[in-house]
Amino acid sequence: MNMTREQALDYVRPALKTPRYEHTVRVVDQAVVLAERFGADTEKAELSAAFHDYAKCMPLNLLKRWIEKDRRLPKDLLDYHHELWHGPVGALMLEQEIGLEDADILSAISSHTTGKKHMSILDKVVFLADYIEPCRDFLGVEEVRALAETDLDHACTLALKNTIVFLVGKGRTVYPDTFHAYNDLI
Amino acid sequence: MNMTREQALDYVRPALKTPRYEHTVRVVDQAVVLAERFGADTEKAELSAAFHDYAKCMPLNLLKRWIEKDRRLPKDLLDYHHELWHGPVGALMLEQEIGLEDADILSAISSHTTGKKHMSILDKVVFLADYIEPCRDFLGVEEVRALAETDLDHACTLALKNTIVFLVGKGRTVYPDTFHAYNDLI
Repeated sequence: MNMTREQALDYVRPALKTPRYEHTVRVVDQAVVLAERFGADTEKAELSAAFHDYAKCMPLNLLKRWIEKDRRLPKDLLDYHHELWHGPVGALMLEQEIGLEDADILSAISSHTTGKKHMSILDKVVFLADYIEPCRDFLGVEEVRALAETDLDHACTLALKNTIVFLVGKGRTVYPDTFHAYNDLI
Repeated sequence: MNMTREQALDYVRPALKTPRYEHTVRVVDQAVVLAERFGADTEKAELSAAFHDYAKCMPLNLLKRWIEKDRRLPKDLLDYHHELWHGPVGALMLEQEIGLEDADILSAISSHTTGKKHMSILDKVVFLADYIEPCRDFLGVEEVRALAETDLDHACTLALKNTIVFLVGKGRTVYPDTFHAYNDLI
């Protein structure tokens, strides 16, 4: 994968609505900061972040078909909110379309929404960058941002806690990978 | 299993400290009420409730050895709080000691602390009876009691929500069966 940040952003831009593209650029910047801070590969962080929402604005039917047809995608995704589909599907789309085959980057793209058990530093950096990029303003984000200054695991744990409490409070399902990520970090 | 409520209570009494025994009697009464209300077998509910905390006051080392040695017990229990061990281990102890072999009762005893995916009505009745028996006073129990007047699933869902939010708020792990039970009910 010899691609620059600009090439990756140019690739995803036509697939995204403008606000989503602008979010993506902020996640790239945030991911680079976190990668330098916590010792992840900055080029991989840059590419993972540039690609993380590639499938976010695609038709749900298309994502659904991928999940039904690609045996690498867990079928139980279909039982959960469609918001969770774009990470795992986007990773495999990019693998097919542009030969993206770096397992670390694919994992970071795939797990950026839900987290997963045994997250790598790169996984955590992209997950957290997406959660704390400067325009995020949901409840509790400031505390996660503060932790992200010094403690990657602690920041990810709090982000996962906030997510679980938010979803359970709303009576929504919680994808098992999110609980596994949380339990694993605790 | 031809055992009366009194025989079952007499069997567990020497294994329990007095407050735990008194709790058990209240859970039996509550379980019978719920079983009648929601159409579970009242005799099974009575016995499941009488036995549900059989292993609760036993030495942790003994419970641990059971989990290590009995291949039917999931090993990952050892990675979670020991509070979760007495249900699954107690069920198997009773199977061995008194030939308790009713799968419905064993399931209700085993899952009473954590819940599990695809809970039966009996499982829910015992889980809920343990949660709402009259002396329980933790935060949110009144609302669960009110729901338990009319809606078994809704009451169990709220009990599971409260448990998850409590544990996550405290930064404690959540046993996978608990979120499977929650997701399954949602």
